[in-house]
Amino acid sequence: MKPSPTHNVALDLASLRTALAQGLTPTALIEEIWHREQAWADPALWIHRLPKSAWQQSAAALEASGPSAQRPLFAAPFAIKDNIDLAGVPTTSACPAYAYTPAASSPVVDRLIAAGAIPLGKTNLDQFATGLVGVRSPYGTPRNAFNAAYLPGGSSSGSATAVAAGLCSFSLGTDTAGSGRIPASFNNLVGLKPTRGLLSTRGLVPACRTLDCISIFTRTIADAAEVLSVAAAFDPEDPYSRPATPPVSDETWPPRIGVPRADQLKFFGNTDAEKLFANVIERWRHLGATIVEIDYTPFIDAARLLYEGPWVAERFAAIRDFIEKSPDALHPVTRKIIEGARTQTAVSAFESIYKLAALRRRAESVWANIDVLLTPTAGTIYKVAEVEADPIQLNSNLGYYTNYMNLFDLCAVAVPAGFLPSGLPWGVTLVAPAFHDDRLLRLGAKFLGEQPPIRSVAPSGPSVKLAVCGAHLSGLPLNGQLARLGARLVRATTTAPAYKLFALPGTTPPKPGLIRVTDGGAAIEVEVWELPVSAYGHFVSAIPAPLGIGTITLADGESVQSFLCEAAALTAARDITSLGGWRAFLKNPS
Amino acid sequence: MKPSPTHNVALDLASLRTALAQGLTPTALIEEIWHREQAWADPALWIHRLPKSAWQQSAAALEASGPSAQRPLFAAPFAIKDNIDLAGVPTTSACPAYAYTPAASSPVVDRLIAAGAIPLGKTNLDQFATGLVGVRSPYGTPRNAFNAAYLPGGSSSGSATAVAAGLCSFSLGTDTAGSGRIPASFNNLVGLKPTRGLLSTRGLVPACRTLDCISIFTRTIADAAEVLSVAAAFDPEDPYSRPATPPVSDETWPPRIGVPRADQLKFFGNTDAEKLFANVIERWRHLGATIVEIDYTPFIDAARLLYEGPWVAERFAAIRDFIEKSPDALHPVTRKIIEGARTQTAVSAFESIYKLAALRRRAESVWANIDVLLTPTAGTIYKVAEVEADPIQLNSNLGYYTNYMNLFDLCAVAVPAGFLPSGLPWGVTLVAPAFHDDRLLRLGAKFLGEQPPIRSVAPSGPSVKLAVCGAHLSGLPLNGQLARLGARLVRATTTAPAYKLFALPGTTPPKPGLIRVTDGGAAIEVEVWELPVSAYGHFVSAIPAPLGIGTITLADGESVQSFLCEAAALTAARDITSLGGWRAFLKNPS
Repeated sequence: MKPSPTHNVALDLASLRTALAQGLTPTALIEEIWHREQAWADPALWIHRLPKSAWQQSAAALEASGPSAQRPLFAAPFAIKDNIDLAGVPTTSACPAYAYTPAASSPVVDRLIAAGAIPLGKTNLDQFATGLVGVRSPYGTPRNAFNAAYLPGGSSSGSATAVAAGLCSFSLGTDTAGSGRIPASFNNLVGLKPTRGLLSTRGLVPACRTLDCISIFTRTIADAAEVLSVAAAFDPEDPYSRPATPPVSDETWPPRIGVPRADQLKFFGNTDAEKLFANVIERWRHLGATIVEIDYTPFIDAARLLYEGPWVAERFAAIRDFIEKSPDALHPVTRKIIEGARTQTAVSAFESIYKLAALRRRAESVWANIDVLLTPTAGTIYKVAEVEADPIQLNSNLGYYTNYMNLFDLCAVAVPAGFLPSGLPWGVTLVAPAFHDDRLLRLGAKFLGEQPPIRSVAPSGPSVKLAVCGAHLSGLPLNGQLARLGARLVRATTTAPAYKLFALPGTTPPKPGLIRVTDGGAAIEVEVWELPVSAYGHFVSAIPAPLGIGTITLADGESVQSFLCEAAALTAARDITSLGGWRAFLKNPS
Repeated sequence: MKPSPTHNVALDLASLRTALAQGLTPTALIEEIWHREQAWADPALWIHRLPKSAWQQSAAALEASGPSAQRPLFAAPFAIKDNIDLAGVPTTSACPAYAYTPAASSPVVDRLIAAGAIPLGKTNLDQFATGLVGVRSPYGTPRNAFNAAYLPGGSSSGSATAVAAGLCSFSLGTDTAGSGRIPASFNNLVGLKPTRGLLSTRGLVPACRTLDCISIFTRTIADAAEVLSVAAAFDPEDPYSRPATPPVSDETWPPRIGVPRADQLKFFGNTDAEKLFANVIERWRHLGATIVEIDYTPFIDAARLLYEGPWVAERFAAIRDFIEKSPDALHPVTRKIIEGARTQTAVSAFESIYKLAALRRRAESVWANIDVLLTPTAGTIYKVAEVEADPIQLNSNLGYYTNYMNLFDLCAVAVPAGFLPSGLPWGVTLVAPAFHDDRLLRLGAKFLGEQPPIRSVAPSGPSVKLAVCGAHLSGLPLNGQLARLGARLVRATTTAPAYKLFALPGTTPPKPGLIRVTDGGAAIEVEVWELPVSAYGHFVSAIPAPLGIGTITLADGESVQSFLCEAAALTAARDITSLGGWRAFLKNPS
């Protein structure tokens, strides 16, 4: 068979955009993916794959309207874990008897489709998202993309293997105990578990409603950042949704990276994984990071609480009517785990909640000394047959580094970190406190050799407009400061014709000084940026003399905050007003 | 008997300080209070009153060391609810069989004593802080300070009546469901239930550990603010302690005050109380407030959840070993309430937690339209005999306006609001979201005709130093902006001799402009204030042209942020440099 011209198109967003720009049509893309899907032929990957005609309709609709700035995910195919609603398609949570057909998609799915992404179907999972293995499903075990004898990882098994098999650009998983990270590790992917509450959990079959997150599988950090920026939005109708409150201060480089004390690392006999982890630490040292050994005890204790404590009762509460009526409809392992919670008392539940609060306080002290925590994503990987023989203990081993994450309100990103001699991929996870997702993504990018993504989560709350006229202009050395504070460019314009611009001698990077004058002023090129007021104080307090902040008038009469310079500093400075702006000066500084 | 010269000393902090300044000694004060205590002679107020000798020892020690800035509560007598530890004195929680003698005081008690306050003893309460009535104690019912036939209110019954009877300056209660507010209302006091986690709950016998607060009874808002500022401190050893994160923006006046829709107000047949509430609303209107009717439904539903939901299981968990071993040692009503929680399941506990999350989200929308919520503290007041005849329902009626407070993470202050024809006092409560305690105190002061207190809770986190040279100086019109942002005065000094000061024409309030000059500068009077970086952005963004922010050099060479003025604005301004500062100009502006 003659290979189609689209045969080699890579599906990461950057490659996909290049291919589309070079003439690939959404329809041709979909055709190619259909071929791949047929060739991959995993009968256990999908629970409900949409018919080819639905794929084609999506593609045709996009083709008709064309790409636009409002559709940053134009034509990107994606897969949806089958515990997240897609309108008109059954949601099973891998339990056929539980299935219902939602009238509406979950808000996260809605946002992705509105951004131009093409839903391909609903993927297999460990039933009711209970498991880290991918084998607890009546729909079979999705095939690990590297070796079918090994676990795909779970519970988001099908979503991870769909990306790894080249069937889509990204996929949605969920992550309560590690379901968005373990399958990433086993399939050489980036697996982002965002801060709890950043992505709406409406239209999600709950596992533990107080802990659940929708998660994102991609090939690159850049893609994870981009999908996150589309998917994240405060949802007032979801009681567990939270407005984004990114940290106010800029990030430091080099980072202080915490790793568990050597005796607290567990690889469950996998010495090859142990060597890879040592390599990862060396790589970070080589990049300039400071490695800090931490006491991992509270994390271990909290991880244990997730399944030994009352949170399993949330899994029972989530499907109470169903499990009471049809207990036999459950996978036997899932049933065994969830039914165990039926008799727990409220008193013991609160006792565990207190224990968690104490552990969390102990774990918090760690963050005074480190910027991120680095651990294996899983200490090892098992064969499907091994887990079938010992379904609960081996699953539990896989959660050693993941189970505490949502209990402690942390965010995490799993990243690929090499291959085991068996040919299986292996990965590590970076962890940070809630709302530090961007820190994780920037450091993850550094580790993978990618360009750092800009801030992906738009902060909420009041903002302030700031005019910049020098080194903070787009593309100039200090512009990154604005991006990292969550600023966005509002417009490029000029001041009213009442200002002078001077090149300040001896500044690094070179900076100009703007002042208002009563006579002889001109219109000076500025950019107006909007940044969160919560971050503005930190920004202002770091501005060096003779620069400062005042109010200027723009060409159209609007008043905004702006950099201004002390007049006394300009006696020895060159007046560059006639050039009209700092960029013109930089082009010809002599 | 000849009245002692201290006979009439009032114990609010301002009066007490005046008396001390006029020669009253701590020993004489204690002698007077001893007489009052003997005269009050309520056998049910104290569970363990300290011996007179202990009072005298405290007084003598203070007398020996004298007043100091480190002891803002110098010689202020206070009472401690007997579920809060005082070293060496039994803690009973009003259950004699439960008693233990702590080796250490609770951190809050420690801080108050270190600030110079004199502990008088441990006060009676509704057993295990379960009740709003004050009659559920084997130690009897403390006497309502206005009419012994009526309830003292509870659970902090003895602490409230001790202040109302003039035995102490302030007292500590606790407030899980309303125990710090109901007794304030029934005894004509201010009752502050601070934001959860501002005051350490170590050394406190838990009621509901996830909800408990230590509360403060005083005669005035000023005193509540002052005691709060001493008592509040982040305690890393208390898993429920939280660092203070005051709001970044300034408060608005006039306030928008929410009141429940008329059909949602309940006075339980007390039409006199209903009239008083109407009067209160009129008074707020007269003060300039905007009254906004709100839908009180989610608050009512959450209040009901507190005792119908799983939170009673926390009360069981708090004394699990004890109640399982000695159920007969409990007050029969308390036992009935708490034992009912033994059989609740973890599954139903989580179901109620979900219900609360949904209610909380609904209630949150209210805060977009109002600054504070205003309700009766209790709809009515009952006689002791009435409650003894119907102990649970009448108690429940009293919680109609209080029970939801900690479930929704709100802070509240109960303030006196007049008297019923029966001669009993009646009060209202102001409510705001967590960490808005200062807003409540400022508005409470306005309502009571007191001077507004300055910020009482020191914010945590990074700070910035700002030099001010004009209307923000201490005592000048804009200084309050700094206080309200949590700023504190670091020092008064001058700039390096390199600045000029100008009186800006046409500014309101009058403002100067400071600029650095290369020639002819002088040292200008400034004050250096330190304010939270989190609040600084809001402050800077509100500075009007031609003023702005830059960096200046102080007399000793330190560089700090400072107000600076655009040079272009000074052409028509009067140079007042020779006066040395803005205060000198204000004294003689012509």
